[in-house]
Amino acid sequence: MDTSPTTRSSSTRLDPYVDRYAARTAGMTQSEIRALFAVASRPEVVSLAGGMPNISGLPLDVVSGAIDGVVRDHGTVAMQYGSGQGMLELREQITEVMRLEDIDAHPDDVVVTVGSQQAVDLVTRIFCDPGDVIICEAPSYVGALGVFRSYQCDVVHAEMDADGLIPDALRAAIAGTRAAGKKIKFLYTIPNFHNPAGVTMSLERRHEIVQICEEEGVLILEDNPYGLLGFDADPMPALRSISSENIIYLGSFSKTFAPGFRVGWALAPHTVREKLVLAQESATLCPPQFSQMAIGAYLAQHDWQGQIKQFREMYRERRDAMISALNDMMPAGCHWNVPAGGFYVWMTLPQGINAKAMLPRAVTARVAYVPGTAFFADGFGSSAMRLSFCYPTPERIREGVRRLAGVIEEEMELRATFGATERLDTLPMGNETPSTDTQ
Amino acid sequence: MDTSPTTRSSSTRLDPYVDRYAARTAGMTQSEIRALFAVASRPEVVSLAGGMPNISGLPLDVVSGAIDGVVRDHGTVAMQYGSGQGMLELREQITEVMRLEDIDAHPDDVVVTVGSQQAVDLVTRIFCDPGDVIICEAPSYVGALGVFRSYQCDVVHAEMDADGLIPDALRAAIAGTRAAGKKIKFLYTIPNFHNPAGVTMSLERRHEIVQICEEEGVLILEDNPYGLLGFDADPMPALRSISSENIIYLGSFSKTFAPGFRVGWALAPHTVREKLVLAQESATLCPPQFSQMAIGAYLAQHDWQGQIKQFREMYRERRDAMISALNDMMPAGCHWNVPAGGFYVWMTLPQGINAKAMLPRAVTARVAYVPGTAFFADGFGSSAMRLSFCYPTPERIREGVRRLAGVIEEEMELRATFGATERLDTLPMGNETPSTDTQ
Repeated sequence: MDTSPTTRSSSTRLDPYVDRYAARTAGMTQSEIRALFAVASRPEVVSLAGGMPNISGLPLDVVSGAIDGVVRDHGTVAMQYGSGQGMLELREQITEVMRLEDIDAHPDDVVVTVGSQQAVDLVTRIFCDPGDVIICEAPSYVGALGVFRSYQCDVVHAEMDADGLIPDALRAAIAGTRAAGKKIKFLYTIPNFHNPAGVTMSLERRHEIVQICEEEGVLILEDNPYGLLGFDADPMPALRSISSENIIYLGSFSKTFAPGFRVGWALAPHTVREKLVLAQESATLCPPQFSQMAIGAYLAQHDWQGQIKQFREMYRERRDAMISALNDMMPAGCHWNVPAGGFYVWMTLPQGINAKAMLPRAVTARVAYVPGTAFFADGFGSSAMRLSFCYPTPERIREGVRRLAGVIEEEMELRATFGATERLDTLPMGNETPSTDTQ
Repeated sequence: MDTSPTTRSSSTRLDPYVDRYAARTAGMTQSEIRALFAVASRPEVVSLAGGMPNISGLPLDVVSGAIDGVVRDHGTVAMQYGSGQGMLELREQITEVMRLEDIDAHPDDVVVTVGSQQAVDLVTRIFCDPGDVIICEAPSYVGALGVFRSYQCDVVHAEMDADGLIPDALRAAIAGTRAAGKKIKFLYTIPNFHNPAGVTMSLERRHEIVQICEEEGVLILEDNPYGLLGFDADPMPALRSISSENIIYLGSFSKTFAPGFRVGWALAPHTVREKLVLAQESATLCPPQFSQMAIGAYLAQHDWQGQIKQFREMYRERRDAMISALNDMMPAGCHWNVPAGGFYVWMTLPQGINAKAMLPRAVTARVAYVPGTAFFADGFGSSAMRLSFCYPTPERIREGVRRLAGVIEEEMELRATFGATERLDTLPMGNETPSTDTQ
């Protein structure tokens, strides 16, 4: 035992339990996003790092009225234990929400979860043994990669382009994995306004991806927190609208209403749904009844679709502010996409600049982002970063981009002076004709 | 694929995913309690089965005022994402709650969970590989046994008596497990008003159990949802008050306030706490912020200790009603304990009567209970049952016991007429001089 705690910091002191943890616990490490939160949340830092929705536009009087009705009229139900599957009334409302993406579903096949993060966890729990493979887009959602790692799964990335996951890349990933004698448990995909890549899968691709997975017997885990947050057009049909078998669809109220209730859901084929309910009962007994009734009352009493429209307009304004600022200020050699919805822009840096290594200098310059490596299971992405436009005001976004452009320019000058010292990763996306201009 | 769904019930139709699940999923089966809920919740059935707290005494106007203040004054914080560890303010309040059981803790060492069920899940997740052993009391909480099974752990039971877990039984379980070459990851114990056994660990035993586990290097998982619900005396000191190392303590607001918010917590040694936070972030990103602030406001604005006193009096009245009814009506050969708090009485039946086999007849007679087998990992407990007095009114409890006594008497008559046909389990507790009177 360490008897001199004052001589060691908490992060370096010995862990007396180090030999007792499960093998999976070695894969549980702080994500690069989480580690950033402490600094990025200081008020002087413009955070382009977090994915927090901006909920300042929510009508608190409406929410207050809805929730007060829940407490006064149904308090002893709302504060009681509930079903592991979630409340039927809310599951019926969820099927209405999904209808906006052409999904025809029965409430019996919906399982309410503690945010859609928990849905990713429960799906992985019921399907994946250590060493099983999950195919993910390159890049992919950091929180899902963390779940997959915690279940000791192997992630195989398949590349995307401006139309989303590339069918040939998926075919190659499936074939390569099977040739290596490994089991593929599912494809994890975010078809709409991808986190972090910002791209959306085209309609044609959707059909092709669904068909490939049916032919190959690969289950699809369709994660769709942002689908209703398109700026320019109606929602795209979900993959789940193309086929009701072989696809588990995940939805969330975190971005269309508010994340603090932690209510998401999984829509799954009947037999899978039964397993998910058992897993939910084991994990939490039941999702929070109070949260479910609060959301149910909000949906019933408020023009929630009108609220989503307001959110879309607010986020579009911020997307426009970011793209305009990037156009105006980023040095040559930086590349980014223009997302048609959601929260994120994916930017690749001039050759030889490492986004992770640069981060401390950016934070010193009072701007934060998430380095691209957070979104890969395999160390790629060091020349890229995710820029979030969801939370700061347009003015702050512009200021943040200004600061970031300055940091990148300094970095380029340093490199021009001293030359490249770091190995370059192959950029998995967005590196069309990498610029050789390091000035 | 089954193309004739009308010829098969949903429970027997083929699962096209049956070959794709993880090995752990085979261990996820519907608990005997859950399977009962559908019938036991019919109004004509007196359910002595469930463990739902009776929250009808909660002052809805106070709760409403507290929650309305959260929405109006802190709505955009309450409805936002939060920390994976939970809110500092609530963690501070939690240390105040634990002080009632002599626990001296720092808020840094508390992790908020989605009910204490999730705390059991996360602790098992970070510590247990398949095949690891968890020592549990005999009987033990059905929800914890389900978690342990879902992580493919082996449960070794250690017997209890009226003073709780028997030290020699614990020593024997440790020695036997190690002699078999297996790793013990922790002892799972419910020291207060045990679910389902109703017994409470004596003060002397607490010291002895803590000492054995320290000497043997066995971590203790102390699950304490009922500790503040004693009928006759002040709360007992927690095991965690005896030692701050080597013990993870779990608490919950589900029985002292309300379960519908799903807020529990784990208090863990510093390094373990860090792993639990990582596991929580992976499982849900963060526990529900809204629930945490609702509970925080209730604790801050209400005489919550006075409310717990009311709960205690209400539950004592129900305990008295059940014990009095059992004394008046149960046939000879039934044995039960008189719990000093909590929700449960454990009753053993006359020799040869199988509680699980008898259950359908009990439900037909409009009374429900949980058969003892639900609380054992190894098939024991068939001659015992858990009777809950927490939810029904005293009048309904008496009526339920009357119906149950009638069912048991019929069963005894059948056995007297046709003789025993079933193998008798060894009763693990409460079978002092089993009666041979089957009349």
